[in-house]
Amino acid sequence: MKTLNVDLGNRSYPIYIGQQLLTQKALLEPHIASKQVLVVSNDTVAPIYLDRLLATLESYDCYSVVLKDGEQYKSLDTLNQIFDSALSNKLNRQLTIIALGGGVIGDMAGFAASCYQRGVNFIQIPTTLLAQVDSSVGGKTAVNHPLGKNMIGAFYQPRCVLADISTLDTLPERELSAGIAEIIKYGVIRDTTFFEWLENNVGALLARDSNVLSYAIEVSCRNKAEIVEQDEHESGVRALLNFGHTFGHAIETACGYGVWLHGEAVAAGMCMAANLSHRLGWLSYDDKQRIVGLIKRAKLPIEPPVTMSSEQFVDLMAVDKKVEDGKLRLVLLKSLGGAVTTADFDKAIFKQFLSDIDAV
Amino acid sequence: MKTLNVDLGNRSYPIYIGQQLLTQKALLEPHIASKQVLVVSNDTVAPIYLDRLLATLESYDCYSVVLKDGEQYKSLDTLNQIFDSALSNKLNRQLTIIALGGGVIGDMAGFAASCYQRGVNFIQIPTTLLAQVDSSVGGKTAVNHPLGKNMIGAFYQPRCVLADISTLDTLPERELSAGIAEIIKYGVIRDTTFFEWLENNVGALLARDSNVLSYAIEVSCRNKAEIVEQDEHESGVRALLNFGHTFGHAIETACGYGVWLHGEAVAAGMCMAANLSHRLGWLSYDDKQRIVGLIKRAKLPIEPPVTMSSEQFVDLMAVDKKVEDGKLRLVLLKSLGGAVTTADFDKAIFKQFLSDIDAV
Repeated sequence: MKTLNVDLGNRSYPIYIGQQLLTQKALLEPHIASKQVLVVSNDTVAPIYLDRLLATLESYDCYSVVLKDGEQYKSLDTLNQIFDSALSNKLNRQLTIIALGGGVIGDMAGFAASCYQRGVNFIQIPTTLLAQVDSSVGGKTAVNHPLGKNMIGAFYQPRCVLADISTLDTLPERELSAGIAEIIKYGVIRDTTFFEWLENNVGALLARDSNVLSYAIEVSCRNKAEIVEQDEHESGVRALLNFGHTFGHAIETACGYGVWLHGEAVAAGMCMAANLSHRLGWLSYDDKQRIVGLIKRAKLPIEPPVTMSSEQFVDLMAVDKKVEDGKLRLVLLKSLGGAVTTADFDKAIFKQFLSDIDAV
Repeated sequence: MKTLNVDLGNRSYPIYIGQQLLTQKALLEPHIASKQVLVVSNDTVAPIYLDRLLATLESYDCYSVVLKDGEQYKSLDTLNQIFDSALSNKLNRQLTIIALGGGVIGDMAGFAASCYQRGVNFIQIPTTLLAQVDSSVGGKTAVNHPLGKNMIGAFYQPRCVLADISTLDTLPERELSAGIAEIIKYGVIRDTTFFEWLENNVGALLARDSNVLSYAIEVSCRNKAEIVEQDEHESGVRALLNFGHTFGHAIETACGYGVWLHGEAVAAGMCMAANLSHRLGWLSYDDKQRIVGLIKRAKLPIEPPVTMSSEQFVDLMAVDKKVEDGKLRLVLLKSLGGAVTTADFDKAIFKQFLSDIDAV
């Protein structure tokens, strides 16, 4: 097992990465505040892993709430089911909420933990690759609004993250690829060594080689932790982690939440950002091709849905969290490994870039 | 005008108390983050004061959302109307949300500000006495759940509080008394000099003597600020501010939100807490009588609703935020001015005290 630390002063916490961690009570115990535990999961993950976790926690007063699986249920209404469960079981402020599932479950359970009785203890047990390499780390929690992704939420750090690689054995292939999208992101924005390693190992990742998976998760979490430690509340460098996400969120919202997986939308969004960076004259043709090529090899989409118009992109990106004083800021590439957040790009080229979407 | 400061490090903020502050742009301006402002009000307050505030803010891109008035609308559903408004107007992360109304509006607008795009700027303009002396100060925000008051929320400090005493001219008498309940609370729990002053001035308060009101608001805010500065997140002394509230919240939830005003429920709850403290042998008969007498003179209820049973109290108090490891902790009085939060009281006397409720 590997242990990484996210250093955030009195909100610091460990990330445990390894095999069969779900059964290791000693890892969880120090991070649970009292007897009361509420496990939040979904109807895909719970049938496979919930009993195993409840057995590990049998000495606690352990409750569980099982939500419907899918991004389309990441809403205030579903969030309320967590509160219903907590309150009908009279769970108090010393409660620990544990997320057992993918990014949607982690985001909702974390947001619920941030606001149940104005904040209770929280633990992440991510069971998808995407959640293990990205969403479980860094304390971003949220639900969606029909008019925008992740528009209602909080920064709220977990007490620990337990990434049990064994749970990836049951992950559908589409979800595996979606996770690889966020892994590739770290390489593209800041870690060219890792990018090269991924070019050599994407096949082994898709084949679920456990050593390769473990290394990719570790490097991803280390990259994420380094950024979050510098800028917990995204007033600066943390925005780089949104590479591909402004386009990606627009795709998710336009297609209807859950139609494209988050990682798939980010993959297409990263290709769009790379293409735009190249058209701006910032990124070389070769590097753009390497990025798009790796994403394609990971069995991910490299173009936005044909049904989407440039107008939809403009409209949906206008509520992006990086908009400042009416100006859209994008994460773009000055080079492979060199991402920047900027509103200072040629608007005529950007307009032409978007209108080409309609021409497809 | 008086200015008090709430000292919370980088979350410090001023409280302005005075006449006709709504029209003073210079007070608000330094606390607004960008051009975008969203005023949240209700359908009682907005017809009287919204235009005045919008005129003050005419140089901003100012939007408003008017919610239904009443504690029964302090819910996740109503909260979502704020998000609907913000997103349909494409308001971004540099937005400033301003609460214009009483405690319900302040709690909801504040919670919305804490989670819209994971946190935007927030300003409190309380227009009820209760909000001016209590709920607008200290950063507690929340909505209710059918199973418990204020169960979903956040600690989120405003950038400033603007208490315009002129707005109290239009306050209904019942609401005025409800505000006096929280004023009396400060005297009872920690400030006997203020309690004595209130015994001499409760008539002038009810008559809305502006100097007397101004002084009462100032002393109340100073008391609250001192406590919040010591314990922002209520891990200790701040719980004392909940004197009367554990009983009071049970009353509000049992009767249906909005049937009793919050201040009315707290008034009856304070009498219950004073009575219990006396029966435990902690508070003298005379002091108990002084407390109940002052509350009565403020035209507030001194007993819980006759429809409520002891069982309802036990049931509803079990989800109180002060419950720890299954033990109910209450704010009780060791003396007038000497409140304590404790689970260490004679349970037989408490049981008898509650069963007397059924005997009424």
